[in-house]
Amino acid sequence: MKNLFSSLPKDLSAEVFEDIVSSESVRIERIVSKGHTSPESGWYDQEESEWVIVLQGAARLSFDDGREESLGVGDFINIPAHSRHRVSWTDPTCPTIWLAVFYI
Amino acid sequence: MKNLFSSLPKDLSAEVFEDIVSSESVRIERIVSKGHTSPESGWYDQEESEWVIVLQGAARLSFDDGREESLGVGDFINIPAHSRHRVSWTDPTCPTIWLAVFYI
Repeated sequence: MKNLFSSLPKDLSAEVFEDIVSSESVRIERIVSKGHTSPESGWYDQEESEWVIVLQGAARLSFDDGREESLGVGDFINIPAHSRHRVSWTDPTCPTIWLAVFYI
Repeated sequence: MKNLFSSLPKDLSAEVFEDIVSSESVRIERIVSKGHTSPESGWYDQEESEWVIVLQGAARLSFDDGREESLGVGDFINIPAHSRHRVSWTDPTCPTIWLAVFYI
């Protein structure tokens, strides 16, 4: 992969997570969703902080304090480590492309 | 700034660099160029590695081994620390928006 919008996975029956960069301190990941929510149950509760941007499609994140954030193209959010959250909606009509940077 | 494509600097007489995230190990930056090349003279020779993607516009990078890379929307490249490089061209007709992740 040399272009974030190309080589999209053909099988989107499940969300697809692909590492682009992985070093000791940072991991850059492309995530492609299509109508998925995640995790299946409960919350993400991560050791690392995560900065994430939607670059195609649309999504909604929920936080365990009740907050909801709708993300369209170009919208980004920073999620501190251990801020419990989940993907509560992604556009079912087209692939949603996320770029996520996990860091310590 | 909550959207990478909004709040573009009005004054693009010089390139504009804005920190989005800054931690001990990572820095995420938006760079907006319009016809600029950089640095003014010589090469970037960085202590950190840099992963960079063009999200609007177009650009060209040159490396001191003679390699050139043209980047359109969605194209990304990983530049290891101390890989001497420069921005040899950016589209003069519209702002080019880069997202850069500097990491160790």
